[in-house]
Amino acid sequence: MQNSDKKKLSTEPYKGVRDFYPEDMFLQNYILETMRTAVESFGFSEYSASILEPAELYEAKSGEEIVHEQTYTFTDRGDRRVTLRPEMTPSVARLVAARKRDLAFPLRWYSIPNVFRYERPQRGRLREHFQLNCDIFGVPNIEADIEIISLASAIMRAFGAKDTEFEIRMSNRRTLKEIFNKYNLTEEETIRAYKLLDKKDKIDDFDEQMQKLLGKKLSLSDAPDNESALVIEKLTERGISNIRFDPSIVRGFDYYTGIVFEVFDRSPENNRALFGGGRYDNLLKIFDVDDVPAIGFGMGDVTLQDFLKTHALLPHYVPTTDLYIATQSTEFIEYGEALAEKLRVEGINVAVNLLDKKLSDQIKTAGKQSIPFFLVVGENEITTKMYSVKNLNTGKEYSAAESHIAEIIWSDVEGE
Amino acid sequence: MQNSDKKKLSTEPYKGVRDFYPEDMFLQNYILETMRTAVESFGFSEYSASILEPAELYEAKSGEEIVHEQTYTFTDRGDRRVTLRPEMTPSVARLVAARKRDLAFPLRWYSIPNVFRYERPQRGRLREHFQLNCDIFGVPNIEADIEIISLASAIMRAFGAKDTEFEIRMSNRRTLKEIFNKYNLTEEETIRAYKLLDKKDKIDDFDEQMQKLLGKKLSLSDAPDNESALVIEKLTERGISNIRFDPSIVRGFDYYTGIVFEVFDRSPENNRALFGGGRYDNLLKIFDVDDVPAIGFGMGDVTLQDFLKTHALLPHYVPTTDLYIATQSTEFIEYGEALAEKLRVEGINVAVNLLDKKLSDQIKTAGKQSIPFFLVVGENEITTKMYSVKNLNTGKEYSAAESHIAEIIWSDVEGE
Repeated sequence: MQNSDKKKLSTEPYKGVRDFYPEDMFLQNYILETMRTAVESFGFSEYSASILEPAELYEAKSGEEIVHEQTYTFTDRGDRRVTLRPEMTPSVARLVAARKRDLAFPLRWYSIPNVFRYERPQRGRLREHFQLNCDIFGVPNIEADIEIISLASAIMRAFGAKDTEFEIRMSNRRTLKEIFNKYNLTEEETIRAYKLLDKKDKIDDFDEQMQKLLGKKLSLSDAPDNESALVIEKLTERGISNIRFDPSIVRGFDYYTGIVFEVFDRSPENNRALFGGGRYDNLLKIFDVDDVPAIGFGMGDVTLQDFLKTHALLPHYVPTTDLYIATQSTEFIEYGEALAEKLRVEGINVAVNLLDKKLSDQIKTAGKQSIPFFLVVGENEITTKMYSVKNLNTGKEYSAAESHIAEIIWSDVEGE
Repeated sequence: MQNSDKKKLSTEPYKGVRDFYPEDMFLQNYILETMRTAVESFGFSEYSASILEPAELYEAKSGEEIVHEQTYTFTDRGDRRVTLRPEMTPSVARLVAARKRDLAFPLRWYSIPNVFRYERPQRGRLREHFQLNCDIFGVPNIEADIEIISLASAIMRAFGAKDTEFEIRMSNRRTLKEIFNKYNLTEEETIRAYKLLDKKDKIDDFDEQMQKLLGKKLSLSDAPDNESALVIEKLTERGISNIRFDPSIVRGFDYYTGIVFEVFDRSPENNRALFGGGRYDNLLKIFDVDDVPAIGFGMGDVTLQDFLKTHALLPHYVPTTDLYIATQSTEFIEYGEALAEKLRVEGINVAVNLLDKKLSDQIKTAGKQSIPFFLVVGENEITTKMYSVKNLNTGKEYSAAESHIAEIIWSDVEGE
């Protein structure tokens, strides 16, 4: 039992993670639902996996820095090394590999996992965030590249973003590899060059570091390779014109093999990459199966929410509860609950007062919880069978028989 | 880069956790959505928190066994002790304590977190599972007890469970405490007695162990105390008659202070507790705030799914994708995508073929992915502007102009 002298606990969450109060949860659910609706319209099916994965899964192919410095990895009591997933791609590759023979390709899969990185919390970079992952498996041709970039654009538009507010920058790992080959880099040096290029904007002496690695100055052509040019042409035909070739786009993970892209916020105060992805045709090789061509992207909720805030695209809080039933005194609580029960059947979400409180305090509670509709149950209402339903946001009042309360709430909401 | 001689990775998930393929995800989403709809109808608002919590949060008040033997606890690189939450109650208490002054009570909150326990995986007990948590804060009187048990019953009914298929067994920690007081137990011994009683059905020599602890034989009265009797009476008045007083119900956690209850499967082959909860009026004391009376329950997805399976209450898989657009050859893919784009606007979820495959193979892919509707885009369709829309489940075919495809799919689905 708690000793009263004992030091009291802090109410702070663990460093770098978030608490979601109902208002925060509303925004989170809005973001996740908007993602789901857009992605499912493209024929993607949802899958999921645990946040706990064997540590070896990440050591095979992810970027080294991420495995060794930035993961939560620990040894369990059964002496297994476990990692809290830092990204979803190795997990989805594992699921596809496990049932490769039974699955019908092309496969369009999505998930919205929480992922973990052990790093210093900063704007847009928390230790835990949610990340929409969309992947197409089994399509080696550029039709998949075109569709996956179309989908990325469709999601941004579903949030109300204008094409002038974001930009898709695209490049090709194959071309980059050819360029680095000309500098006679080893495979390991090529990976280091990718990583350096990926952090270009964050490194002050980027040019010097790259020159040191390559032996001479890096020269990247702004002209797209044929594959990139074709993808951009087809996307433009589909009405996506906020896309351009940018040879410095490379992405951090080792496993990319072809087209890579990043979506940038175009606002001057927040000009940075929001999310990205690319083609990874060899990842399934780490399991005991043949390769399956794949392309996908991961879209984080924290950077996206920053973007939506910057562009005034976040909705206002509306609680899931529609109606608050107040009671003249506690003896009417049971009557209130019985009325609530009938309204629930009609699809109205109802909270009933449970306390011995004045009506003025009950109306304050409903207001503080942003519940839009309010009615009182008391002697009068029980006698007359008529209720006064009030919209607390507009002040509008309706007189209604029991059987009309739901209808009045629905039509008032629609009329707004 | 991957060395081909290197040992290949296993495609198995970490021990005791689950992968969710689209068919599994469908069931999981069905379960979570049914919970949400039922709970929100009672005026509960959703909140959430990270799975990472400071380890101290659990050491203050949870059952000792759970803290010391059954949690995933590790030290992070900043020397903080972190626990993967084994339950949600301490987190929700933390959130309420942090904003106690700003929140309007009564507060009805719910969340469906994943929680972690380090134990031997067995039927209905995995290392990670999801658990609906519903709590009412700020109501000291039995109206909250009645509502929370009503809600538990409403959720079971929302899944299609009949009142004859499950039973609510209720007791009172206050009464149990009085009984144990008669045996002159210390506070610590009382907690041990609770834990022993909670495991009654799992311990062979329960009677002997209890007698040893108490000094004499345990004698529990089957007659409910006044508070329990009143709760049962009121629930019966509300049409919930599958409830009975059972003095052996106690719950495992230390923090309960009043009414406790468990919902049991009544089927002979699976007769066991599905979930439970109770009143915990002192938990917020562990933070530096005054007590807030509280009552709640946690309902796990794994045991619930076992129950639904046993009683044949699980729905059949229906994918989120409505229509598969096949292409006569690859040159029609762009046309197919353009048609898909128009149908998406009308709310139809569409997957388009992206591969150079025969039509017979494309229809197989759609079938294997259980996508109900199918149409082909080819020369004929482009010339005549008419499409043949087929329901792959019923074999029914419709001839439709582009502008009628969505309508035909909607009305076919409704007509089923």
